[in-house]
Amino acid sequence: MSKAIELVNQLEKLQIKNLYNSDFYWTWDKTDDEIAAIFTVADALRDLRERNRSCRVFDSGLGISVFRDNSTRTRFSYASACNLLGLDVKDLDEKKSQIAHGETVRETANMISFMADVIGIRDDMFIGEGHKYMKTFMDAVTEGYEKGILEQRPMLVNLQCDVDHPTQSMADMDHIIHHFGGVENLKGKKIAMSWAYSPSYGKPLSVPQGVVGLMTRFGMEVVLAHPKGYEIMPDIEKIAQENAKGTGGSFRKVSSMAEAFEDADIVYPKSWAPFAAMEERTRLYQAGDKDGIDQLEKKLLAQNAEFKDWTCTEDLMKRTKNGTALYMHCLPADISGLSCKEGEVENSVFERYITPLYKQASYKPYIIAAMILTSKVQDPVAALRKMDAGSERKLF
Amino acid sequence: MSKAIELVNQLEKLQIKNLYNSDFYWTWDKTDDEIAAIFTVADALRDLRERNRSCRVFDSGLGISVFRDNSTRTRFSYASACNLLGLDVKDLDEKKSQIAHGETVRETANMISFMADVIGIRDDMFIGEGHKYMKTFMDAVTEGYEKGILEQRPMLVNLQCDVDHPTQSMADMDHIIHHFGGVENLKGKKIAMSWAYSPSYGKPLSVPQGVVGLMTRFGMEVVLAHPKGYEIMPDIEKIAQENAKGTGGSFRKVSSMAEAFEDADIVYPKSWAPFAAMEERTRLYQAGDKDGIDQLEKKLLAQNAEFKDWTCTEDLMKRTKNGTALYMHCLPADISGLSCKEGEVENSVFERYITPLYKQASYKPYIIAAMILTSKVQDPVAALRKMDAGSERKLF
Amino acid sequence: MSKAIELVNQLEKLQIKNLYNSDFYWTWDKTDDEIAAIFTVADALRDLRERNRSCRVFDSGLGISVFRDNSTRTRFSYASACNLLGLDVKDLDEKKSQIAHGETVRETANMISFMADVIGIRDDMFIGEGHKYMKTFMDAVTEGYEKGILEQRPMLVNLQCDVDHPTQSMADMDHIIHHFGGVENLKGKKIAMSWAYSPSYGKPLSVPQGVVGLMTRFGMEVVLAHPKGYEIMPDIEKIAQENAKGTGGSFRKVSSMAEAFEDADIVYPKSWAPFAAMEERTRLYQAGDKDGIDQLEKKLLAQNAEFKDWTCTEDLMKRTKNGTALYMHCLPADISGLSCKEGEVENSVFERYITPLYKQASYKPYIIAAMILTSKVQDPVAALRKMDAGSERKLF
Repeated sequence: MSKAIELVNQLEKLQIKNLYNSDFYWTWDKTDDEIAAIFTVADALRDLRERNRSCRVFDSGLGISVFRDNSTRTRFSYASACNLLGLDVKDLDEKKSQIAHGETVRETANMISFMADVIGIRDDMFIGEGHKYMKTFMDAVTEGYEKGILEQRPMLVNLQCDVDHPTQSMADMDHIIHHFGGVENLKGKKIAMSWAYSPSYGKPLSVPQGVVGLMTRFGMEVVLAHPKGYEIMPDIEKIAQENAKGTGGSFRKVSSMAEAFEDADIVYPKSWAPFAAMEERTRLYQAGDKDGIDQLEKKLLAQNAEFKDWTCTEDLMKRTKNGTALYMHCLPADISGLSCKEGEVENSVFERYITPLYKQASYKPYIIAAMILTSKVQDPVAALRKMDAGSERKLF
Repeated sequence: MSKAIELVNQLEKLQIKNLYNSDFYWTWDKTDDEIAAIFTVADALRDLRERNRSCRVFDSGLGISVFRDNSTRTRFSYASACNLLGLDVKDLDEKKSQIAHGETVRETANMISFMADVIGIRDDMFIGEGHKYMKTFMDAVTEGYEKGILEQRPMLVNLQCDVDHPTQSMADMDHIIHHFGGVENLKGKKIAMSWAYSPSYGKPLSVPQGVVGLMTRFGMEVVLAHPKGYEIMPDIEKIAQENAKGTGGSFRKVSSMAEAFEDADIVYPKSWAPFAAMEERTRLYQAGDKDGIDQLEKKLLAQNAEFKDWTCTEDLMKRTKNGTALYMHCLPADISGLSCKEGEVENSVFERYITPLYKQASYKPYIIAAMILTSKVQDPVAALRKMDAGSERKLF
Repeated sequence: MSKAIELVNQLEKLQIKNLYNSDFYWTWDKTDDEIAAIFTVADALRDLRERNRSCRVFDSGLGISVFRDNSTRTRFSYASACNLLGLDVKDLDEKKSQIAHGETVRETANMISFMADVIGIRDDMFIGEGHKYMKTFMDAVTEGYEKGILEQRPMLVNLQCDVDHPTQSMADMDHIIHHFGGVENLKGKKIAMSWAYSPSYGKPLSVPQGVVGLMTRFGMEVVLAHPKGYEIMPDIEKIAQENAKGTGGSFRKVSSMAEAFEDADIVYPKSWAPFAAMEERTRLYQAGDKDGIDQLEKKLLAQNAEFKDWTCTEDLMKRTKNGTALYMHCLPADISGLSCKEGEVENSVFERYITPLYKQASYKPYIIAAMILTSKVQDPVAALRKMDAGSERKLF
């Protein structure tokens, strides 16, 4: 029996009928079974692809992408996932960072979705805007489908909003599951999601929020560390608390990287911008206040610079479990002495973890493909079995 | 019997052998049977797609696009049409609005057409240039094909030139046919193609020209309204006159929006630039006269501003047949109080017609696909029958 | 028997097992049998396509392209080749001419190769950098594949580096073979690869280097002509010398275009920048010395201008074999009196050779497709036979 078929047999036991025709906004919208199903389908697709099975779900069709912020990794992961399933990618080349009005979004949403099976959106720059944009977009295509404008309703893959970055956190989690040999081995494992210093400004909150919003569901000890002033959204802290309660794990906050790293199994040191400042930034953009934005940027860079000691050094790594915690990053990292003078991580630490870091990233195409497949295919179990017994991807 | 098969049975009665291997420049190049065939094939493809039939004509192949002016709707419609038929889209990223020389066009045309089944071109900015560019391009690929450089001759889809915008007017017409329940119900219907005020400058003439050049072929009462100075090309008016004569309909010009709207079944209020001014603009660009262009722009904006009362208000809509005429626009519209202070249409009118407006746009991918299919497939009747009985698009 | 099958029968006799899973950096890396196999497969694919056979090797998969310099011809050739074989093209939109650091390249290489079967790279701007970039990139994906990050190792097609331009020289050579009716007719034919004046600066050396590095392998008399100061890389001259020795042909250098053209069967007049100056330019870029770069540019343009008589005139063409040598160019050319005041070639000469010039370019998609097929398919003979007997490309 192939690994894919073993996974399909596990998938069969999960309740996932609500994934069909659903959108993927946030991981906390999804049940534990649904989250488990995404990992299972992702791993099955990876096995099928490795054994040269065709994973086509579509004979033709489009995967539209709307990147309202830069992207390389996620862009190519989305393109790979669409291609794997038989969809062509067509990118909407909007001017980035433009805060669009409802009317325009409604019109654009319909005009670019004529034959779209999937819509992937990244809109992570402005607090209070990214998720709203996606909601407005998807409401518009729902209406368009109901009114007969669109003959199919595309499903949404959130490729990073102001709140969550589910394709990242799910890929991160799949990496953790594989690293520790199975989800059943994660109970009690300690993960440190820590703020780290960066010489750049305004990095999204959606990565740390995505991580604490998801990793707290597996019975792990999740610790969030950051300097005062770098709080994440209170709503997400609440979700993390509730998740932890339900699984026998824990979620707590500390105010030093060293404390977070102490005896940790996994460390995830990464910079982000303070939530309150990001809210202020959105207001300034909406008001067109260029001077205000410049002043805010200066203030934030100065504030960051007060915490240059929040960096992942070899000394700090030694404090982790046996000095060998799994180091994680969503990439690209600010590497001290390599990509910048002082940054998130010492070069020697980063260099030592390059293979696991790239491996971490390599799960994303399959996670995206699994999100699409479980939303577009009514019976994923049957589909994956047919793929396993089906035709080859490379024909010669 | 499926709707597609019903349509194919109608298609079988039409004389369309000259569509095979033809280009689509202007609707008035095509016979009535050919125009009818495009609508029929478009509707059949829509039905096939809605019933999850694969509409692949090509196992592989490229649809090249050359957008020498901005586009969202048409770009995605073209991408959808190509994808539906099995072609990948590859865009030539030329600097827009550059008036190219014959030699360059001839070379480029061959260099990007090595495996092109279709070429879609938008070149609408300069009077006297857009159509010429397309002609030069297609003459070059014809020669390239004859000389054995290209192994196939791609067909042209005009995605908007300086004279016509056939994918728009054909989609508009398909919308009208569906709205009134069939082409047989259009005799005597009144359509008002009216100029409307816009705070922007230099909008192409090809939309109103395309509309009066096509809508006059169905026995309708076609009224063209515009302020003095906003004349369209005399040649197109002549075509409209002759069309109308042949079908028992009429074509006439009036000088007020109110008169045009009186008892109209359909209204199409939209801004465009004066023909003579656009000719002047081309000359200035060719001479590299930047000051002249700036002055012309100022003059035209001032001239526009004299006609701010040419706007589609609720009051004007009340004058139409039962106050419920079908409002049409090629989008995006300049909406008063929404996208601009004063524009082509009152927000409340536009808002009320959003569903039909989006529906109007939704015909374009199928119109483009029908243009491609009837040019590339020798026996469209047989092909559509095979598609109806063939394999599925979404495989699971 | 089809032409494709005749070619496959020739292919069967060649030793090409080392092409499988190999990269295509430089033609001189490849054995004579391997070079012959590329031409044979390219011609077979062209015949298959002309007879409407599907040439799909892949059901799905990505061909990634990284263009670190502008391209139209090669870009569309690569897109055509990928499409022919069943791959979608996804372009990495890097800022061009940025000299990237090893670490970034390693990361990017893995991040964009998740499902890549092929990587096409153009990096021709900086001496000592282009090839290095490709090597670093491919070393990174090799490591990624070995570590289980990538489930397949993509193969490289060099779309022009600082040293060679193999898709160009191989297409050029295929054109020559066809023009003279077979590779067996080339012994003793004289080809003049000559520098020519251009009003622009910094044209890559990889075209002349690619030409003398490849054309010397077929028993031809290869003459390289350039003014003093426009030397190509000494290593490549040495390769050309050794090639010539092995085939009974010759390689020599002359210092006038007239001498090179004398009795030539083929002339290839084209501008390039002096090797030493290009090395200097790389150093200046790396040092960020903008003034130095500007001064170098001025110096080089002045130096070029001393050799305006190095231009392919009708008079010079008369000196060639029967006055009818095959004129070649990689396009676009600087055409005197058409695209510039004084350039590489007289307009009347260029105009007379347009059909062969376009034909020359038309081999490139097939050469690229042959490079991909022979690297990705273990048994090209069997694959091509199946294609010949297989399904159609245009289905209706």
